[in-house]
Amino acid sequence: MHMDEKSIRETDEQQSMIEGRNAVREAFRAGSTIDRLYVQEGLKDGPVMDLIRRAKKADAVVDYVTKERLDRMSETGRHQGVIAHAAAYEYAQVEDILKKAEERGESPFLFVLDEIEDPHNLGAIIRTANLCGAHGVIIPKRRSAGLTATAFKASAGAVSYTPVARVNNLSQTIEELKKKGLWFVCADMDGEVMYNLNLTGPIGVVIGSEGSGVGKLVKEKCDMTASIPMKGDIDSLNASVAAGVLAYEIVRQRMKINA
Amino acid sequence: MHMDEKSIRETDEQQSMIEGRNAVREAFRAGSTIDRLYVQEGLKDGPVMDLIRRAKKADAVVDYVTKERLDRMSETGRHQGVIAHAAAYEYAQVEDILKKAEERGESPFLFVLDEIEDPHNLGAIIRTANLCGAHGVIIPKRRSAGLTATAFKASAGAVSYTPVARVNNLSQTIEELKKKGLWFVCADMDGEVMYNLNLTGPIGVVIGSEGSGVGKLVKEKCDMTASIPMKGDIDSLNASVAAGVLAYEIVRQRMKINA
Repeated sequence: MHMDEKSIRETDEQQSMIEGRNAVREAFRAGSTIDRLYVQEGLKDGPVMDLIRRAKKADAVVDYVTKERLDRMSETGRHQGVIAHAAAYEYAQVEDILKKAEERGESPFLFVLDEIEDPHNLGAIIRTANLCGAHGVIIPKRRSAGLTATAFKASAGAVSYTPVARVNNLSQTIEELKKKGLWFVCADMDGEVMYNLNLTGPIGVVIGSEGSGVGKLVKEKCDMTASIPMKGDIDSLNASVAAGVLAYEIVRQRMKINA
Repeated sequence: MHMDEKSIRETDEQQSMIEGRNAVREAFRAGSTIDRLYVQEGLKDGPVMDLIRRAKKADAVVDYVTKERLDRMSETGRHQGVIAHAAAYEYAQVEDILKKAEERGESPFLFVLDEIEDPHNLGAIIRTANLCGAHGVIIPKRRSAGLTATAFKASAGAVSYTPVARVNNLSQTIEELKKKGLWFVCADMDGEVMYNLNLTGPIGVVIGSEGSGVGKLVKEKCDMTASIPMKGDIDSLNASVAAGVLAYEIVRQRMKINA
């Protein structure tokens, strides 16, 4: 049977499992539509009882199951006795990200992730985006990790707050956002040292894949290339660390301006 | 049979497996004492042939084994067809870290990791330490991830270059290093915003555990507490991202002084 790309993607999206106590609590707190909570039989400690209370309040079904069943369901291998089944994650629109900036009365600040393949890195970057005050994250539909249980867990629940938009063509999206006044800076070794660039104003930070960095077509669309100074013996920082370091240089410059 | 802490630790250290193509190549490049290289039968691509050449040059035994056997040996689940067996990792001494700074004619810059439990985070932080120009990493003997295959892989080979010392008592080590002129800054939410602190000069950066941050006794020994500005909805950055962000603020301040 032929299964086209779209149906695979939709199947994938319908399966949204959230694993681990913090991630599930954050999902409830953020008002995600969780329809079912699986809890390991016999667990009665405070954090688990709190999740059960939240589930009942949200009209979710609570299922008590064996540890073995949770282990089989688990994608991360670290469910800590709880897995929530949420309605499919609804990716945001790029417009939602801009709206969020407008609501806060801030210049847009967003992340563009060019083919991040590791869901841990994707989750960790969304976590960073949330904490550094960015308004959203844009990922491509193809060749990128999606919002799986692993990404959700690595985001420490940030996925419930920070909009993630998925687009067909990153270059085109960048082009459209440039028309709306955004500047794009991509992280790459051959760029100008980030401390010497002006990274204030409406900005998108482009982070490349773990293996090969930012793609050529996407890079050409960027206004600036920023490098993180490297003094070591090995090649490059972990993608989520690099994203954090560059994002916080933007935070620093923005704080200085508003000081 | 009673097995005391020391013998468990030594057994642990004798098992040093390095997994994945980049990590193995870095280990050879750095001159690690690899005695055996396991290669998946049938693999003959360029990168693997390069590793086999390096193994022969280093007088390591090359064993061709089935994928199934590698899968069973693998700790990370991502061996990419190669696992190297190295002589036990020799932890460095704190003195080696200071010596490295002296050799480079730089003020000491080191990381102190207070009970980082996840070997991925430990590896990623050593990777960051290497790239930001730090001279070494100090971890405690108890309640900390050690240099396992997972940590080695996550370090992208940085473990082969950046000395990692393991000490009995972090507070005491900090005390001794303070007598030698180092300042210690710990990362914690209740600190002064890092951009407002003077982080130049001989410095140690203290990063706490994923769950509970820097321990009380260790924190009391620190001269400063630095916070990373957080604007988001969730609690905290991933430990390795936080370490990277704080480390690069130190890099920035050092570069400014030397400019």
